[in-house]
Amino acid sequence: MMELSVIKIGGNIIDDEENLQSFLVSFAAVPGKKILVHGGGKLASDLAARLQIPQQKAEGRRITNKETLDIVTMVYAGLINKKITAKLQSLQCNVLGLSGADANIILAHKRSVTASGIDYGYVGDIDHVSSQTIHDLLRNFDAIVIAPITHDGEGQLLNTNADTIAKEVAIGMSNTNSVKLIYCFEKNGVLMDVEDDKSVIPAITPELYTALLKEKNKKGEPIIADGMIPKLTNALATVEAGVKAVVIGNAMELGRLLSGAGGTTIKKSSNDVV
Amino acid sequence: MMELSVIKIGGNIIDDEENLQSFLVSFAAVPGKKILVHGGGKLASDLAARLQIPQQKAEGRRITNKETLDIVTMVYAGLINKKITAKLQSLQCNVLGLSGADANIILAHKRSVTASGIDYGYVGDIDHVSSQTIHDLLRNFDAIVIAPITHDGEGQLLNTNADTIAKEVAIGMSNTNSVKLIYCFEKNGVLMDVEDDKSVIPAITPELYTALLKEKNKKGEPIIADGMIPKLTNALATVEAGVKAVVIGNAMELGRLLSGAGGTTIKKSSNDVV
Repeated sequence: MMELSVIKIGGNIIDDEENLQSFLVSFAAVPGKKILVHGGGKLASDLAARLQIPQQKAEGRRITNKETLDIVTMVYAGLINKKITAKLQSLQCNVLGLSGADANIILAHKRSVTASGIDYGYVGDIDHVSSQTIHDLLRNFDAIVIAPITHDGEGQLLNTNADTIAKEVAIGMSNTNSVKLIYCFEKNGVLMDVEDDKSVIPAITPELYTALLKEKNKKGEPIIADGMIPKLTNALATVEAGVKAVVIGNAMELGRLLSGAGGTTIKKSSNDVV
Repeated sequence: MMELSVIKIGGNIIDDEENLQSFLVSFAAVPGKKILVHGGGKLASDLAARLQIPQQKAEGRRITNKETLDIVTMVYAGLINKKITAKLQSLQCNVLGLSGADANIILAHKRSVTASGIDYGYVGDIDHVSSQTIHDLLRNFDAIVIAPITHDGEGQLLNTNADTIAKEVAIGMSNTNSVKLIYCFEKNGVLMDVEDDKSVIPAITPELYTALLKEKNKKGEPIIADGMIPKLTNALATVEAGVKAVVIGNAMELGRLLSGAGGTTIKKSSNDVV
């Protein structure tokens, strides 16, 4: 089994030139094959504002009309993806920067209008990841860099959540590879005390998660706050589906996240060596 | 030797949704392996105008400052490249849409300030085409689609003329492949009479070119007009460098261009079967 790291970065890295450069140096140094999935950061919203294209959100998610789809395609698959690709090439990391339409790697369908009547527009929900194609590409290249744009197989590009792409790609690749999925965000990991950056919980198993859900901190608030619950249930479902471990932590310490010395590692059993 | 067609399209196809769709249907049907090189059309200039970024030209060529580089990267490598990729996938043509930075396929250097003092900014002149990498990718995919963005190997993206990319890729690939290079433009080919679309010269060899340069039409004007001279000298240099034939003609009759039934075919000798 090939060792594969799937790493997702978001706006806090993409929007800051120095953070991005420092992250990419660490990324290039990661041993084994790797996949980088990037979000869009603030650049797409900034461009929409400059073009005076109003951005609507529903339940915290961007509604993607035709003009907004063009914007995210330009910013995600063009500007960000190619900047990252050129920088990685300069670090002797030979990469291909792809969207889901390239090599048909991610097939999606346009999300239907929700039961509550929300039309998200050109937003894609993933149907299929071509893990064999990705596997073959990774034989010849050090890494691939995936922009959060997919397609429906009928010529339509679709805007797709980068966290979901990272998860589905990691699960798809876990059939024939030993996969770690790393979600980088602005915090050091899942914290026992949100005000103490050093209170990272090093490992979470399904049993510990169930126990933590009931626990409260000194102030009587739940330890696992609202925003963390979907991240953790998703991570547990991902390891259940075959991914060896999901690590949540700070992009600025990527090496430590991969070695298990930093961040929070979500795994099936406390006996698992990951 | 693998049969390979390198096809370059410009604004008259890219800017018109119907023309583009019709062209891509013909492209998908071309037998053998193929490479599509696309320019940018009016979209980049339109976006620059909407963002109020003044565009400067020198000797007919765009000066690429930092903001303009971001625009062409977004429009060429993002919007146009991914739209074409998704449309070709829907036509069962499995493609990879790439810039020169992806897989390190085209290495360039930033053009120096010219002797006459013109600084073209982030414009790249090509140093190297990784023909082996392109060859390997074409083993696994039907086609690759190249946006006219290259890189310098030190992390800098560069804006590069699409005609030049098509030429250099065709020459690079001709070591191990039997390559035809097709330049699509708005005319049916090189015309004996610029006012008669049907007066296409079917084939031009170096000898015929030398003869044609001296000929005048009924009005006493040269048959080979100013704008056509660099196209033809370039085409002759390209066949001299190993490309089997260069065809100049109308994108709307791609099949006829490839079979030799349409357009003007530039070849080394009138005995060449191309």
